[in-house]
Amino acid sequence: MENSTCFYCQHSQTDIPSFIFETRYWLVYLNSDQSYLGRCVVVLKLHKEALSELSNEEWHDFAKVVKKLELAVKASLGATMCNWSSSMNDAYQDHSPHPHVHWHFRPRYKDEVDFEHKVFVDPDFGHHYNRERKDLVSNDLIEKIVARIKEAY
Amino acid sequence: MENSTCFYCQHSQTDIPSFIFETRYWLVYLNSDQSYLGRCVVVLKLHKEALSELSNEEWHDFAKVVKKLELAVKASLGATMCNWSSSMNDAYQDHSPHPHVHWHFRPRYKDEVDFEHKVFVDPDFGHHYNRERKDLVSNDLIEKIVARIKEAY
Repeated sequence: MENSTCFYCQHSQTDIPSFIFETRYWLVYLNSDQSYLGRCVVVLKLHKEALSELSNEEWHDFAKVVKKLELAVKASLGATMCNWSSSMNDAYQDHSPHPHVHWHFRPRYKDEVDFEHKVFVDPDFGHHYNRERKDLVSNDLIEKIVARIKEAY
Repeated sequence: MENSTCFYCQHSQTDIPSFIFETRYWLVYLNSDQSYLGRCVVVLKLHKEALSELSNEEWHDFAKVVKKLELAVKASLGATMCNWSSSMNDAYQDHSPHPHVHWHFRPRYKDEVDFEHKVFVDPDFGHHYNRERKDLVSNDLIEKIVARIKEAY
């Protein structure tokens, strides 16, 4: 069921440059912040408000997303390993919160990566990701990263 | 397959005070840091090194853990919502990393909770969890929190 006030319900298009792929129940987008090269958000197509509400089919389908995305980002960008998290904290700043299930995917890198003449580093590799570090990249670079990931699956 | 140098393979007992419950593929423990009341770690019984290696059965079983734990912690401790993350970063500080799949579960609280005459607060509710905030509680309190969670399922 779509929620008319939910950001994810209203912005889940597949015709935007950051869109990478979809499965039956999930949409995968490249994040505009590429402080971790290949950082993505994985959004449930339906509006559900907690992981405990997911159906077995949605979990089964999420497992496919995890495999496809981890392997593609390792193969295409050289990621060493990947961090996954699902929080939905921001929605609770609202008096009437309606969180929408989504996952943050952050590839992590032992070594620096030169991608299209831009060097990406992961100074905190081996440690928790650092949310203070931001790298908002151009639309042109977003398209190039998306294209590179797509080549790998 | 067990890994002889892996902390999780060597410390996954079910006869310790922090053990809460197990399913076919997962073990659930209360974390000694209770900065987020009811914080747990969910450990895969088998040694696998990335979420992309999980079988469909392990995902299906994890879905059961998520439901059981979220509902129990909401009912027993009054959690508002829950954060889930799987990183395995620390293992990569080793030259020959052998991460073991596990999840961090942090219940989040809109309101403060008085548990056994100790007040637990979540000053960052509505925002990312704060790893600087630590609250290492006594074994006695760990046993009481575990017992309270167990009453709810």
